Amino acid sequence: MIRVGIDVGGTGIKVGIVDDKIQIIREGSIPTVTDIPFEEQVKRIVDCVLSTVEKAGLSSDDIESVGVGIPGIASSETGEIIKCTNMGWNHVPFREVFRRYLDKPVYIDNDANVAALAESVAGVSAGTTSSVFITIGTGIGSGIIINGQIWKGAHGIGGELGHTILDLDGVPCTCGNHGCLERYCSATALIRMAREAVAEHPESKILSIAGGDPSKIEAKTVFDASKANDETAIAVYQRYISFLAQAVASVINLLDPEVIVLGGGVSKAGKDLLDPLVREFPQYVLFNDQPLPAVRLAVLGSEAGMIGASMLS
Amino acid sequence: MIRVGIDVGGTGIKVGIVDDKIQIIREGSIPTVTDIPFEEQVKRIVDCVLSTVEKAGLSSDDIESVGVGIPGIASSETGEIIKCTNMGWNHVPFREVFRRYLDKPVYIDNDANVAALAESVAGVSAGTTSSVFITIGTGIGSGIIINGQIWKGAHGIGGELGHTILDLDGVPCTCGNHGCLERYCSATALIRMAREAVAEHPESKILSIAGGDPSKIEAKTVFDASKANDETAIAVYQRYISFLAQAVASVINLLDPEVIVLGGGVSKAGKDLLDPLVREFPQYVLFNDQPLPAVRLAVLGSEAGMIGASMLS
Repeated sequence: MIRVGIDVGGTGIKVGIVDDKIQIIREGSIPTVTDIPFEEQVKRIVDCVLSTVEKAGLSSDDIESVGVGIPGIASSETGEIIKCTNMGWNHVPFREVFRRYLDKPVYIDNDANVAALAESVAGVSAGTTSSVFITIGTGIGSGIIINGQIWKGAHGIGGELGHTILDLDGVPCTCGNHGCLERYCSATALIRMAREAVAEHPESKILSIAGGDPSKIEAKTVFDASKANDETAIAVYQRYISFLAQAVASVINLLDPEVIVLGGGVSKAGKDLLDPLVREFPQYVLFNDQPLPAVRLAVLGSEAGMIGASMLS
Repeated sequence: MIRVGIDVGGTGIKVGIVDDKIQIIREGSIPTVTDIPFEEQVKRIVDCVLSTVEKAGLSSDDIESVGVGIPGIASSETGEIIKCTNMGWNHVPFREVFRRYLDKPVYIDNDANVAALAESVAGVSAGTTSSVFITIGTGIGSGIIINGQIWKGAHGIGGELGHTILDLDGVPCTCGNHGCLERYCSATALIRMAREAVAEHPESKILSIAGGDPSKIEAKTVFDASKANDETAIAVYQRYISFLAQAVASVINLLDPEVIVLGGGVSKAGKDLLDPLVREFPQYVLFNDQPLPAVRLAVLGSEAGMIGASMLS
């Protein structure tokens, strides 16, 4: 028997056929299309599942369950997707419609929760029973594993570390509030800080690496300029690491998981991100003379969504 | 059979004899004494337990277990109290020494965790399986209940909501960092804000209620002056409620428990605290068009420590 893990993203939808060794044996994908009726969107996903299963030399009879990771929130009880802005879904009966085309157990959860589960079962936090996965990209997502299970909250609205307040009356957030953590710790935040810095220091290598165009500055630009000993880049980078260290320490002060796992685009900086962060975060932990959680980089990369979704039950 | 719950505080140690209906049937107490050897401190506590049991018309044979709530951290595995600053305890073998005098199962946990457990078993959050208890006093303590059990973290250092960062580079904290949540949400914070306000507005009723002496301002002074329509008090009070609302919403965005329970000295303001807070916190919750956690006042008061400690296992 195999499990199907579906990773619903803003640009593409990936389907992974996952065997009982938690390996993806076959992968399929379709571009995300949002300007067709919901039922047709679901039908396209089912068609991709069936064709991918077939390409793996299997049939739908071999499917034990189907899991779906979405950038949004869903109800475990009803199988309804409550909100998924990228897809234009608002209170849609996903499980019910999916099962009209393919009658298997269908589980749905938030993409960060699903990635957290994947890393805790088959990735860098495998063997632990508690972890917090933080995905650092355009925004900040998070997934909490406690006692080996996803903790999505009593109403399914938890795990939104990115919208906890890190700075009272701080930078305005897309959510309407001010000072949300993701305004200081996301790739978007790093880029904003770099743009502000080059406005004052146009001689910075950040700007030359970006071809003189501030709108072309990426997270990587700052890391690269910093490694090239650019003072402005180093200052931006240190400030960013300090924010991230305070965010990580806040998670530890509140939740103290065995492991904190960092994923998402910014985590591709690898040791350039991890080493200074690991040096700095303990100073913000209250009981920092005790054994502390390990902070590690995610290892499953873009497969985490499919693997984690396939593990849902 | 009865259970013994011990509440270790900075000024006094309370012992409750708790029956199987989770009622305190007899209570004893001794003043906290810290200038004697550790063994003698423990012996005094055991003596108080035994005399309280006797006054209840019972003997030590009737004791099923002993639980201890401390303002500090302890190891469930070893029974060691790792740190308890008020008592001057640092890595002391509490369970081992206690059992030399009274050989019963001994469980130790943080006082906020213990109060969280008490409210979730016999108090305002009874019947729920997830809750976060926030105690608002000199500092901010917290206890997290998930799946009906205390979540103290993988290394026993979690539940310190008061030392998560709420304001980057903010007010200096006793812990050495800046901008910790308790610097904005505790009674101490409210008093600091009131003193700052009366320095600019000496005509405020806050000052007259405090007898003209800023050092006599308490949390209650602000609530009272605010109810007397003092503009300065109302402004301080609204600012404080806004901070607390952002703290509560951050807990919801991350953990989304069924209930958030407010205890500690400031919670004695009752509806004056709860009503504006309940009106305000949803605006800071990301998915605030969904069902949200209830926010309620603790009901067990000073008994929570003993009751919760007695429930430890």
